[in-house]
Amino acid sequence: MSFDPEKLVNPKLLQVKPYQPGKPIAECQRELGLTHFIKMASNENPLGTSELVKSQLAKELVHLSVYPDGNGFELKTALSKHHQVKFSEIILGNGSEDVIKMAIQTFVWGQGELLIFEYAFGAYKILAEGLGFTVKEVPSQQYGMDLAAMMSGVTANTKLIIFANPNNPTGSYINHADFVSFMNKLNQDVMVLCDEAYYEYMVEKDYPQTLTLLKQYPNLIITRTFSKANGLAGLRVGYAIADERVIDLMNHVRQPFNVNHLAQVAALMALQDQDFVKQVIRLNEQGKTQFADGLKKLNLSFLPCHGNFFTVEIPIEGINVFEAMLKQGIIIRPLMPYRMKNYYRITIGTFEQNEACLNALKKILHKERVV
Amino acid sequence: MSFDPEKLVNPKLLQVKPYQPGKPIAECQRELGLTHFIKMASNENPLGTSELVKSQLAKELVHLSVYPDGNGFELKTALSKHHQVKFSEIILGNGSEDVIKMAIQTFVWGQGELLIFEYAFGAYKILAEGLGFTVKEVPSQQYGMDLAAMMSGVTANTKLIIFANPNNPTGSYINHADFVSFMNKLNQDVMVLCDEAYYEYMVEKDYPQTLTLLKQYPNLIITRTFSKANGLAGLRVGYAIADERVIDLMNHVRQPFNVNHLAQVAALMALQDQDFVKQVIRLNEQGKTQFADGLKKLNLSFLPCHGNFFTVEIPIEGINVFEAMLKQGIIIRPLMPYRMKNYYRITIGTFEQNEACLNALKKILHKERVV
Repeated sequence: MSFDPEKLVNPKLLQVKPYQPGKPIAECQRELGLTHFIKMASNENPLGTSELVKSQLAKELVHLSVYPDGNGFELKTALSKHHQVKFSEIILGNGSEDVIKMAIQTFVWGQGELLIFEYAFGAYKILAEGLGFTVKEVPSQQYGMDLAAMMSGVTANTKLIIFANPNNPTGSYINHADFVSFMNKLNQDVMVLCDEAYYEYMVEKDYPQTLTLLKQYPNLIITRTFSKANGLAGLRVGYAIADERVIDLMNHVRQPFNVNHLAQVAALMALQDQDFVKQVIRLNEQGKTQFADGLKKLNLSFLPCHGNFFTVEIPIEGINVFEAMLKQGIIIRPLMPYRMKNYYRITIGTFEQNEACLNALKKILHKERVV
Repeated sequence: MSFDPEKLVNPKLLQVKPYQPGKPIAECQRELGLTHFIKMASNENPLGTSELVKSQLAKELVHLSVYPDGNGFELKTALSKHHQVKFSEIILGNGSEDVIKMAIQTFVWGQGELLIFEYAFGAYKILAEGLGFTVKEVPSQQYGMDLAAMMSGVTANTKLIIFANPNNPTGSYINHADFVSFMNKLNQDVMVLCDEAYYEYMVEKDYPQTLTLLKQYPNLIITRTFSKANGLAGLRVGYAIADERVIDLMNHVRQPFNVNHLAQVAALMALQDQDFVKQVIRLNEQGKTQFADGLKKLNLSFLPCHGNFFTVEIPIEGINVFEAMLKQGIIIRPLMPYRMKNYYRITIGTFEQNEACLNALKKILHKERVV
């Protein structure tokens, strides 16, 4: 009998479509030979990383042979002060994706299902299907989240609901009142994970203050990340805040050394440099205006922007917009994996990066019209 | 109805006993107020980390806000050359524990079971039970691995066998001939993961050269780590080498950015500094002699040493050996979680660390005799 590993695994696993990340700059350089690229494909921080973080890391390059603190004592202590929650209400992850996987692994089991929106961040489905679970997707309203549809989608098998607020890649968000109303209606034997990766960017006044709701809704798990506004995507640090009994259960499935030493040091320092975060938010707000104006001038429509990215419709037939942008040195994110034909997600960058992106789009559109 | 999250999860999850890592130095400092500790509790590298790694990391502190290369292009390319295997035969993990979890998640499913030795490294059981699977443990022979018992333990439900070679915490190892004979007898619908975390330390001539066996046994998965001889435990980089179809399936459950940027850079550099590894092995061999002689003088018995640690029996009634060593500034690892009463695992350190440890043991034993 010849060896066929596909016959040895859960058939559900074969359906998993591995995540397609934003094209890395080094890969573009290898493939296209250009040396300079602007990556606007992964909602990374255009200001990079706080100087405080970098200088502290330089001092920490001596303790690398020792296992990281598996309990994340210093970072969780700092987070606990920062958010005014208990130490025992926090769990750290190798990026918030790791925390989200722990929540799925903890609360979905047997015939249990994960419930998400149809345009939800692709990782949720991949993580749950990789664990062998069924994922049910409820319809959206004009690419936005429809909480009534979500409530109708809940069945006896629903163990966990995950949504990103704001949603990535469509940028829609749920406001405080709607969120509270949803949680009120939902039975507390269903867990709700609210992925707030873009939390710091949300200047919208009615954005939910979920931390204030934890006592009332112990079935709520909030996840945050250091990858976005704190500029630490390369180091992978995310965390969840929830009822301490929920956190305790999630610790049963956490890999004991899941957050590496330099990542913990970096996050600890990043938390201390809130001025950097403020600067990032200011730049992002300016970029929002710049991009919105620029896209309007180009007659391109886009979804309402909440967070640090624009979801833009670029309906040009006959040319590959992604490749055409790449040739001009700009990496954007095609949303075909989300079945959103002609849609692209573009990260807000620095003033110069935004200008370069808008100019590149202009050239593509112009070329098309000439043809 | 009051909220009780324990009622929402797989009852199997409640049985998981979270991993107890070696006591971190910072924790000892907080609790005991001593400033200087020698940690011999986690089989870490007493020489620290290669200077080449540290100097390169210092240069890399600029790219932290960008997601890591999820495909690990440079590191996998280097590993592929180093081991003379294909790029597609390698998968990276956030420590080898991450890779081991991926193997369990990929190949154990439904009613499938994981088969291990009773004194196997504790993480295997924790990882599998955390995924809701049953773990079957077969008896050992005098703390060593019994391949005949393992073969007898295989049933129709056995999907995966994991063993560490050498085994941690008991230090026993399986030789090449016995390993080949075992693989010959085993049906290839059972996967075998051989955890070779201590590979570089194995100077034993009959230690299995598993890489040469991959073609013959496509159901074999070999894991290695940068945490031990390469001195990168703090950065979490491990990997598996296996048939490319096996690796492809494991990629279905891999978190896309599981190995962080600095970890990838560090591992790449560590691989280039094989002189450092040689120095580490030399020191370890000297430490083996030093420790064996010292323990014999103290009339302490120990299991045969293979790897970078000693498994020592310290049968003193009435005092807590771990605490008594801690008070003298030496952190060792009690093996009670392995139901090995009076046994302690001690990492081979530098000459001075080994002397300090042996002296501390002498004091404890002396005190006991005086009392």
